[in-house]
Amino acid sequence: MIAETPKPPYYAVIFTSIRTEVDNNYADMADYMVELAKQQEGFLGVESARNEIGITISYWRNLESIKKWKENSQHKIARESGRKIWYKSFKTRISKVESDYDFQKL
Amino acid sequence: MIAETPKPPYYAVIFTSIRTEVDNNYADMADYMVELAKQQEGFLGVESARNEIGITISYWRNLESIKKWKENSQHKIARESGRKIWYKSFKTRISKVESDYDFQKL
Repeated sequence: MIAETPKPPYYAVIFTSIRTEVDNNYADMADYMVELAKQQEGFLGVESARNEIGITISYWRNLESIKKWKENSQHKIARESGRKIWYKSFKTRISKVESDYDFQKL
Repeated sequence: MIAETPKPPYYAVIFTSIRTEVDNNYADMADYMVELAKQQEGFLGVESARNEIGITISYWRNLESIKKWKENSQHKIARESGRKIWYKSFKTRISKVESDYDFQKL
């Protein structure tokens, strides 16, 4: 679903990745990381899609909440497995959402 | 592919959408818009994936280049068709990329 984020400014962590061929419970870990992220202070929402590349965007209140999530011990372990097992390559971009607008068909 | 963007800061336009059931040459128009965007001044790259939702992120040098792209006449027509035909709902977020890091398996 499209994340229902508050009025800007807030932060977006854009994670773009290319997977390896190895499954090894990737979907379970990804789902678990989303559940865990939802429990963090400052978490605002998440959006995700994958074809040739995967894009996951998590939204956060501020840089402090992103930093704390990065330091979460279970998230650290998952990221380590990501580098070892699941990802051929990825890029993470930390960005500040300055404005937004939306559209909803009646 | 993962976009090869320059050192931050630069801008990311995050477009998250839910499609209607109507095809009506959507893929052709989407491809054409990417080709057209690539020709614009300040365009830095694009990443796209779709399952239940679609996420397309285009990267730009600055807000001025985003504004000019928004004013492009063919882009305007495509956006109009998007609202009328292709999208149930969407959200566009303009964000400034402040930092990034990447990983590449050896």
